[in-house]
Amino acid sequence: MTTLSPETLSALELQGIELPSWAFGNSGTRFRVWSTAGTPRDVFEKVADAAKVNEFTALAPSVALHIPWDKTDDYAALRGYAEGLGVKLGTINSNTFQDEDYKFGALTHHDDRIRRKAIDHHLECIDIMDATGSRDLKIWLAEGSNYPGQMDMRARQDRLADSLQQIYARLGDDQRLVLEYKFFEPSFYHTDVPDWGTSYAQVAALGEKALVCLDTGHHAPGTNIEFIVMQLLRLGKLGSFDFNSRFYADDDLIVGAADPFQLFRILVEVVRGGGLNNPDVAFMLDQCHNVEDKIPGQIRSVLNVQEMTARALLLDRDALDAAQAANDVLGAQAVFMDAFSTDVRPALAEWRRSRGLPADPMAAYAASGYQQHIAATRTGGTQAGWGA
Amino acid sequence: MTTLSPETLSALELQGIELPSWAFGNSGTRFRVWSTAGTPRDVFEKVADAAKVNEFTALAPSVALHIPWDKTDDYAALRGYAEGLGVKLGTINSNTFQDEDYKFGALTHHDDRIRRKAIDHHLECIDIMDATGSRDLKIWLAEGSNYPGQMDMRARQDRLADSLQQIYARLGDDQRLVLEYKFFEPSFYHTDVPDWGTSYAQVAALGEKALVCLDTGHHAPGTNIEFIVMQLLRLGKLGSFDFNSRFYADDDLIVGAADPFQLFRILVEVVRGGGLNNPDVAFMLDQCHNVEDKIPGQIRSVLNVQEMTARALLLDRDALDAAQAANDVLGAQAVFMDAFSTDVRPALAEWRRSRGLPADPMAAYAASGYQQHIAATRTGGTQAGWGA
Amino acid sequence: MTTLSPETLSALELQGIELPSWAFGNSGTRFRVWSTAGTPRDVFEKVADAAKVNEFTALAPSVALHIPWDKTDDYAALRGYAEGLGVKLGTINSNTFQDEDYKFGALTHHDDRIRRKAIDHHLECIDIMDATGSRDLKIWLAEGSNYPGQMDMRARQDRLADSLQQIYARLGDDQRLVLEYKFFEPSFYHTDVPDWGTSYAQVAALGEKALVCLDTGHHAPGTNIEFIVMQLLRLGKLGSFDFNSRFYADDDLIVGAADPFQLFRILVEVVRGGGLNNPDVAFMLDQCHNVEDKIPGQIRSVLNVQEMTARALLLDRDALDAAQAANDVLGAQAVFMDAFSTDVRPALAEWRRSRGLPADPMAAYAASGYQQHIAATRTGGTQAGWGA
Amino acid sequence: MTTLSPETLSALELQGIELPSWAFGNSGTRFRVWSTAGTPRDVFEKVADAAKVNEFTALAPSVALHIPWDKTDDYAALRGYAEGLGVKLGTINSNTFQDEDYKFGALTHHDDRIRRKAIDHHLECIDIMDATGSRDLKIWLAEGSNYPGQMDMRARQDRLADSLQQIYARLGDDQRLVLEYKFFEPSFYHTDVPDWGTSYAQVAALGEKALVCLDTGHHAPGTNIEFIVMQLLRLGKLGSFDFNSRFYADDDLIVGAADPFQLFRILVEVVRGGGLNNPDVAFMLDQCHNVEDKIPGQIRSVLNVQEMTARALLLDRDALDAAQAANDVLGAQAVFMDAFSTDVRPALAEWRRSRGLPADPMAAYAASGYQQHIAATRTGGTQAGWGA
Repeated sequence: MTTLSPETLSALELQGIELPSWAFGNSGTRFRVWSTAGTPRDVFEKVADAAKVNEFTALAPSVALHIPWDKTDDYAALRGYAEGLGVKLGTINSNTFQDEDYKFGALTHHDDRIRRKAIDHHLECIDIMDATGSRDLKIWLAEGSNYPGQMDMRARQDRLADSLQQIYARLGDDQRLVLEYKFFEPSFYHTDVPDWGTSYAQVAALGEKALVCLDTGHHAPGTNIEFIVMQLLRLGKLGSFDFNSRFYADDDLIVGAADPFQLFRILVEVVRGGGLNNPDVAFMLDQCHNVEDKIPGQIRSVLNVQEMTARALLLDRDALDAAQAANDVLGAQAVFMDAFSTDVRPALAEWRRSRGLPADPMAAYAASGYQQHIAATRTGGTQAGWGA
Repeated sequence: MTTLSPETLSALELQGIELPSWAFGNSGTRFRVWSTAGTPRDVFEKVADAAKVNEFTALAPSVALHIPWDKTDDYAALRGYAEGLGVKLGTINSNTFQDEDYKFGALTHHDDRIRRKAIDHHLECIDIMDATGSRDLKIWLAEGSNYPGQMDMRARQDRLADSLQQIYARLGDDQRLVLEYKFFEPSFYHTDVPDWGTSYAQVAALGEKALVCLDTGHHAPGTNIEFIVMQLLRLGKLGSFDFNSRFYADDDLIVGAADPFQLFRILVEVVRGGGLNNPDVAFMLDQCHNVEDKIPGQIRSVLNVQEMTARALLLDRDALDAAQAANDVLGAQAVFMDAFSTDVRPALAEWRRSRGLPADPMAAYAASGYQQHIAATRTGGTQAGWGA
Repeated sequence: MTTLSPETLSALELQGIELPSWAFGNSGTRFRVWSTAGTPRDVFEKVADAAKVNEFTALAPSVALHIPWDKTDDYAALRGYAEGLGVKLGTINSNTFQDEDYKFGALTHHDDRIRRKAIDHHLECIDIMDATGSRDLKIWLAEGSNYPGQMDMRARQDRLADSLQQIYARLGDDQRLVLEYKFFEPSFYHTDVPDWGTSYAQVAALGEKALVCLDTGHHAPGTNIEFIVMQLLRLGKLGSFDFNSRFYADDDLIVGAADPFQLFRILVEVVRGGGLNNPDVAFMLDQCHNVEDKIPGQIRSVLNVQEMTARALLLDRDALDAAQAANDVLGAQAVFMDAFSTDVRPALAEWRRSRGLPADPMAAYAASGYQQHIAATRTGGTQAGWGA
Repeated sequence: MTTLSPETLSALELQGIELPSWAFGNSGTRFRVWSTAGTPRDVFEKVADAAKVNEFTALAPSVALHIPWDKTDDYAALRGYAEGLGVKLGTINSNTFQDEDYKFGALTHHDDRIRRKAIDHHLECIDIMDATGSRDLKIWLAEGSNYPGQMDMRARQDRLADSLQQIYARLGDDQRLVLEYKFFEPSFYHTDVPDWGTSYAQVAALGEKALVCLDTGHHAPGTNIEFIVMQLLRLGKLGSFDFNSRFYADDDLIVGAADPFQLFRILVEVVRGGGLNNPDVAFMLDQCHNVEDKIPGQIRSVLNVQEMTARALLLDRDALDAAQAANDVLGAQAVFMDAFSTDVRPALAEWRRSRGLPADPMAAYAASGYQQHIAATRTGGTQAGWGA
């Protein structure tokens, strides 16, 4: 059995991956949203489910909220409830893609009234951050157009800069704004923040508290994502990850499920660039569990990140440096693949046991009866979803 | 002004493009379905809207129905209603992607009960075809899996063949089955009919009444679609087109809006291969009007097909043959582009006027007051949509 | 250490992967072909290098030849030479992409003289097959066009069918024709055999001795290659693999280097469909070693295929079937990933040792001094390459 | 016939598109470089051919040189020769991808000697710029790696910044450095400047005289290129265009040949952002004429740019603004498509005639006998090419 060094284990012990509250609600495609027994009806039940993931893995110490999906009258109560279950409230996600006013834009809209409303929504999100103790405001802009000529891309970019500036000005000293980019969807011709370059140019204009959020599913086919990770770390602008995986578009599958080697390469660059367990670089999931169970789907996901982090930490950097310095292509590749090919699962299982955690969190959760419990008791009400 | 030859005008006069009933209902993405005033509440109102498109263009003589979205108690009445408005009922589209039973498959499902139910749904569709006088049963399989290992692709392919055989056996002498393929979505790892090769292999095993449906939005990035058109025509297996356009995935934008040159190339191959005004090759739209008005969206679409057909018919085949025979790359390209670059709109407008049609159908529709009428009168009830 | 079952080891013992002679020559991109010391000057030296790969791995019992690159006056002598080194001469690859006559096509050319010449070249290849004892004639058509309108795709398809028929008619009873498809390159608008569907339609028209060759690098972005493997096996038409890997286009990198999980999935479908150690399904490499050493590049490649085959054979099919039957998405995925995540390298090393092979073929080759020997002795003459 | 306004004609009269000297030499793919009769043997003949393009179109007033391909002993003589033919010497392109030293990098190389050599090559290029009177140094980095782990991407990025700084420091007051980015090729895993974001971050760190070069063929599939044009113009960092077109990878086809609508959209954004006839934004071609004649290939290319510029200038900006302001999706799209659909060729032909130019430059060139002349007289010597 491969053993993991004390340094590796220390690094792994510090690892925390934020869970998205919406991963515990129903989701789907434009064709169908499938429901599952036991799906939460409100944000408290979502937090309870997220806390279960943490209970079985010690990997998920916080929960991201989505406003207005997770709005509540008493954030202090929610915060207390979460902390009572051992988790914190994390990133606040704004939503400017479901109000009829936002059909043609929000932070980029040419109508001042609508743009004002969208800015105000973000200011309200910062109010919520004050109440929840959250550090990060995450902005994903679903804005764009479906047809060439439909909108003035240039003017929208300028209005976006202005809107972001107004939001940025409201941030507290210890708060941050992270700007997500996305290649396409829900718009099909142009998206107002389609790539890391645009997000970088926009946040660089704002200041130090504005950073880029990299969602692993939001790139063009064939994009070398780890290169972007490297570059953003180099530029000091990688604020957070939204982890998931994809074969085609923004499939939002379980992280590491579609291309485990890509996840490994990303984590190697994170380690290389000083992004691991660096408070400036938040790890989050952003996934949909359309057909699989949600809580074990999240457990599997954080385990995948942990497992690939362990493999990345196994990389023999000295040997790699030596091979690279010698232009030894096959030698360097062998060192790199050796880390990836190593099965760290037995060592991780043993280490979990040594910390009082279940060696196999998936099996332990299945055996816990929690799924049956929520399926039986969460009857009535409306299951949470995206409200699309 | 470019003039169109009598042969071209005769060909254009024969052209008919079937409209999808669902294009008149609401649609959207997983993030949001926007609604529009005047959206139909039932299939009769959808047919009425489709008939408007035909009234202003003489290009849309039939309407495709989607079962169960367009189910009604009295298909004879619907048929009479449609014919009274000057249109026919066309292709019947089955739906095996919204019933809870079909979460993990329908015609490919390993559970015999569910597979039987899915087959029976198609037999019911053929019953409806008998009642509506429809010729074609169109099968789009939304089936697949999200994770490698989730399903046995091979066994599903065999069960699909068996299911299709049972459906095929029920077809009347003048009825056909067209099998659509799609690259991905709603499944994100594997799709049971992902490419033309699979659809072709399946329908070839069935017999002469089974053909392939080519949806222009259902291919991998970079695919040369006109090559597939050429090949399916050559093999005698191109049953129908689902026209739309896309920049990224299955965006379902207005046909010709994203890449007009591609639409031209497709129509050139249709003409080359004898597919124009050939009853064996049905022209249909399959689009979503997420943010634009639906009826004028359909009018624009059929006009785009007509316009590109006219350009394709302008192609000087003799000059092209001569340049090709001489390996004159630039000469052949020039002949090809000359047809594409010609503005046929004035000639088409004049020809429309000569036939008693509005020269500018978009303007005529806008001036007709129909949109205001339906917006004012279609109040109450539930607007039609996909019911996702 | 994971142990491999006797059944797995028996299967692995039968495995043979054919090496391409051209992998031992220089290759590159349109920008530069880099040379390496020790590169073969003729086919005998290529065969010698290929035999080295087999000597250290027992995985590469045959060598594919490329005509005219590997033309020689005495194929009997070459055959004897190869057999003396423990390897056989394998597939004969034709070449219709470098003669000035073929600038605008070969088997598809509209000029009868050129098409006749191309057909005759293939007949000559079959003569060579008779002399070398080769079973398979592999045809990769580099034909196509760069501009829409440049060529008549439909007529070319018909001429291709006729040309292939003439070649097919010349095959001996135990000989086969395998037709490779490729998405693009060297043509940039259309390719005459761009996808598996076209290759399938063409070979199905020929007869039982004609099959499809699947090159893993020849697909559109995002294509589910293992689905095609499954389908071709199901249709009885998968004749051979050209293994390599790619991130973008036809990069021809070391198989398993770009996406090891994809290679695993392909081999799972090979096993599932009865294609492993099935004489009807040939395993070949088709790679370029532009910047790395060639012999160890080939050693690494066959080891990658062996390793992923071992992982695929580890798949617990019963557990997978049970999870699939229960629609247990995460359970099935876990079984699948368990096989992929297992490190089989120690067990394979031990097994190699038990068979008198080096436990670490890469290290053993490096220690053998062969590379230094050929670098020192292969001086003068012209290093082999593609002659582009 | 559509008429063009005096403003449009004035704008078109100012238009100049720089031709690449290498477009007149032979080029091809890794599989084959086809030759053509009359291909230049040296840079003087290339300049002569480029001047012919200008003679027939008045659109190509300058020629870009590539060092060392176009090295000569006497740049003053070359400059005088060019000016005698009515053209200027333009951008100087460096080459760090063909020397054996650069196999593993140049400006990014870990070996100080090699990196120094690469920097010095660029300093020499600036010396040449001083002699030729060129303003721009264009740097395309062919550097990268083929295998994950092969190189340290992060360290290379830092060395690149340092190398560029040293080169930048040598620029004269009126000279500029433009940094090209490219998605992939000739490297297949990572490229050191793969996207506009990286190029932008690097040149932003240098200063005002460093800008981005956008090659239209160097993006991931599906990329919205006009968005990048808009963004770089907005950021004041769009230094130049390398025009060409592509269906798949970096196909280097004739600009406007693959997707004329995309070229239109790009030019609309150029006009919108003030980039037309703006001396800060250079228009260049970067193409390969693998199978077509080179001089008419270049004539066709500059005509395509001119034609699409004319269509872009036809765009009724007031009507578009009004439709956009009203969220009239179909109205805005109609205004946009109306400009694209208009056939400006007759008006351009007439305008050319009025300026003493041939109405049909392609026909005039063909009739001029120049192609026959160079084919007959350029015998002996070695045809120019890339020397790959």
